[in-house]
Amino acid sequence: MADEVILLDFYCSMFGMRVRIALAEKGIEYEYKEEENLLDNKSSLLLEMNPVHKKIPVLIHNGKPVCESLIIVQYIDEVWKDNNSPILLPSDPYKRAQARFWADFVDKKLYDAGRRIWKEKGEEQEATKKDLIETLKLLEGELGDEPYFGGDNFGFLDVALIAYYSWFHAYETCGNFSIEEHCPKLIAWAKRCMEKESVSKSLADPNKVYDFVLILKKKYGVE
Amino acid sequence: MADEVILLDFYCSMFGMRVRIALAEKGIEYEYKEEENLLDNKSSLLLEMNPVHKKIPVLIHNGKPVCESLIIVQYIDEVWKDNNSPILLPSDPYKRAQARFWADFVDKKLYDAGRRIWKEKGEEQEATKKDLIETLKLLEGELGDEPYFGGDNFGFLDVALIAYYSWFHAYETCGNFSIEEHCPKLIAWAKRCMEKESVSKSLADPNKVYDFVLILKKKYGVE
Repeated sequence: MADEVILLDFYCSMFGMRVRIALAEKGIEYEYKEEENLLDNKSSLLLEMNPVHKKIPVLIHNGKPVCESLIIVQYIDEVWKDNNSPILLPSDPYKRAQARFWADFVDKKLYDAGRRIWKEKGEEQEATKKDLIETLKLLEGELGDEPYFGGDNFGFLDVALIAYYSWFHAYETCGNFSIEEHCPKLIAWAKRCMEKESVSKSLADPNKVYDFVLILKKKYGVE
Repeated sequence: MADEVILLDFYCSMFGMRVRIALAEKGIEYEYKEEENLLDNKSSLLLEMNPVHKKIPVLIHNGKPVCESLIIVQYIDEVWKDNNSPILLPSDPYKRAQARFWADFVDKKLYDAGRRIWKEKGEEQEATKKDLIETLKLLEGELGDEPYFGGDNFGFLDVALIAYYSWFHAYETCGNFSIEEHCPKLIAWAKRCMEKESVSKSLADPNKVYDFVLILKKKYGVE
């Protein structure tokens, strides 16, 4: 029996994009289901499949849900490892721990800073921009002179971070600054990732992400 | 060459306790280094080994640091898997994903609610108690009628959650309520875990945790 794979997702979600990239890397066919009305009215399928957090993405594999993007990416990597598709987590336990550490760092630092950038103004926003740049510089340092965070191979941390790239335009526009000016090597890495079809086809259009941020600003009463 | 294993830790930390339990489960000998003055003056070794978060626990394995408790526990499980010691993560990818999901849930919900309980008063504290109990009830539901979260075997989620048990006394005293009254099955599970030497020897004395909470309250000016 062929695997039935369904992804509950939202086009602009960086967390959803991670899962799309992992599925594309592995060459897995799946049914994509957009949560059309995520902000106002979550689908009954989403509420049924992720009753704890009620959040996308959810991967439904043969009827069973897996939630939380980094956990889903690891699940995909562990389940589809016997074909000729790439392996995302390194096989060395220390390198695995490092990849997990930095992916966790991305989630602890980047999401929140990115959210504050479009919510804040003035000095508050300046401090957040400084935070965001510091976070990205730390990541740039971790990348070093390697082509990917996974070394010669595009891997787990690459998947975790590149999903944010489609939000950079919105951050830069809302914060009136250039990330490339501060982190040229990181942007070169992002462009390298974008040469991969698994990435370019999975990432949301930055202009559509910015339009979505404008909807968010309106919803939260941010001028 | 024998492995050199050092743990930078703080006696009352639930995150440190997780690592102590995992090391005990695997029967790994290690050097324990207490961060004597964690609140006021972090050791230069800690700052060197975890420059990003500057937090304990840090496992230093043959000179190389691993940070973040759940990542350390997975690392320990992956490195020391060839002796006859127990395996903490299930071998089935779906069960692994579930164990990771709930361990992540513990960190997202329990730490914060526990911290608010001793910081807050009145209605605010009542709402937090309700939150905390709801979180524990969800976990109790996930346990079901199994002896452990890992089924018949004490596993990853057991390690992740039992570390909080030594803080329950402080939560209950600060919040003036009984967790057992709301979650009798969860407390029965905790007592079952405490029968294991790996757990009972790793967990901090609840009275010492409460004393530490009193120090925290003083430090943060909470009456």
